[in-house]
Amino acid sequence: MEIFVILVEPKYPGNVGAVARVMKNFGFTKLVIVSPSFSLNHDDCRKYAMHAQDIIDNAILMRNFDEVVEYMDYIVGTTAIESKDDKHHLRKAFTARKFANEIYKLEGRIGIAFGREDYGLLNEEIKKCDLIVKIPTHDEYPVMNLSHAVCIILYELFVNKYKPLEIILADGKEKEKLYEFFDKLLDAIEYPEFKKENARILFRRVIGRAMLSKWEYHTLMGIFKKAIEKSRKSK
Amino acid sequence: MEIFVILVEPKYPGNVGAVARVMKNFGFTKLVIVSPSFSLNHDDCRKYAMHAQDIIDNAILMRNFDEVVEYMDYIVGTTAIESKDDKHHLRKAFTARKFANEIYKLEGRIGIAFGREDYGLLNEEIKKCDLIVKIPTHDEYPVMNLSHAVCIILYELFVNKYKPLEIILADGKEKEKLYEFFDKLLDAIEYPEFKKENARILFRRVIGRAMLSKWEYHTLMGIFKKAIEKSRKSK
Repeated sequence: MEIFVILVEPKYPGNVGAVARVMKNFGFTKLVIVSPSFSLNHDDCRKYAMHAQDIIDNAILMRNFDEVVEYMDYIVGTTAIESKDDKHHLRKAFTARKFANEIYKLEGRIGIAFGREDYGLLNEEIKKCDLIVKIPTHDEYPVMNLSHAVCIILYELFVNKYKPLEIILADGKEKEKLYEFFDKLLDAIEYPEFKKENARILFRRVIGRAMLSKWEYHTLMGIFKKAIEKSRKSK
Repeated sequence: MEIFVILVEPKYPGNVGAVARVMKNFGFTKLVIVSPSFSLNHDDCRKYAMHAQDIIDNAILMRNFDEVVEYMDYIVGTTAIESKDDKHHLRKAFTARKFANEIYKLEGRIGIAFGREDYGLLNEEIKKCDLIVKIPTHDEYPVMNLSHAVCIILYELFVNKYKPLEIILADGKEKEKLYEFFDKLLDAIEYPEFKKENARILFRRVIGRAMLSKWEYHTLMGIFKKAIEKSRKSK
């Protein structure tokens, strides 16, 4: 599967540059631009692309939407306006997240099309799409900046594949050891007997929610040991 | 709960405008700008804000990050650089999605801070944050445009629709008090000077992630006080 970002008749070169940058931020490289009204060497385009100049350099220019339809195996249209009425399925849409969960079932060249800054995709273009995707937004002002819309869709696709950094958490035995030392500390500071049980449970909850790493565990243990020692000596 | 978007020393007025627009797209209204180098009436700022002029008009200006710390109950820092090493917990981060799932537990004024376009947040600022959030990006080019970073975080918050929670959490001042007592405990147990700074940051992160209730706060404070007393006596 190859994923293409398609910009249909973009008006502002800065937006195209910003799209190139966010594509690179999320590991996408294939950009198709349909009939832009400016040169891709426009200063704003280059400036906003930052370290993604190669994406602009390698962008595929197409003359019209039919060329896109010809080239792609599957076309996904994006829209800010969703049909509220079930009967008007022309713009009935998947959410960005739902789409990101489903896309990996597809094969071949998948093009994700973003329309003009002012009019979006035309109905004629929407009709030629295989699927419509919408980004959930607030009703008061649903129309997003072009590069922001691309940003959300690519983020969702990226996150679906992304595995968070493996932090090694303190294991069950280590946590028990920490609770044991907390207990000893309560003894050492002569914490009132009738309040101990509650304090123990509370500490367990706090540590449970904090999801301690091994490193944090060892540091806290070191501090507890010293506090226990010191407190005992003062008896 | 009130959510504030905080831009720390933004350099480009167009970015601030774009941030205002995407805030409105996702239904957020409260913008704080720390020491901008331009007027909020700059053409680019107004142009990129589109139909979100009111957010620019109502933006709160602050002189420095300490003013932010003073004003907020809970500060979330954003970063592109995640500590790969478990030992460097200064930048150990929640993902944007994880954060969106957890934020509803908080109360009060929650500030989400975004750093400068070139340097992000400084280490000194990062240290003062209760929680660090990272947007997963491709290793080759992880640094996102400022308004794109805001876009992703607000999108995640919008999509997740946080639920209110009944538990009253410790507020900003209480947490600062707890950190202060932790400091005193380190002194009282004669914790090695060169290890103190790391222990302090570690403790702040652990407490930040644990989202302490008021009750938990008071219990921990009681234990800390006793441990400090006892440890001091043994000197």
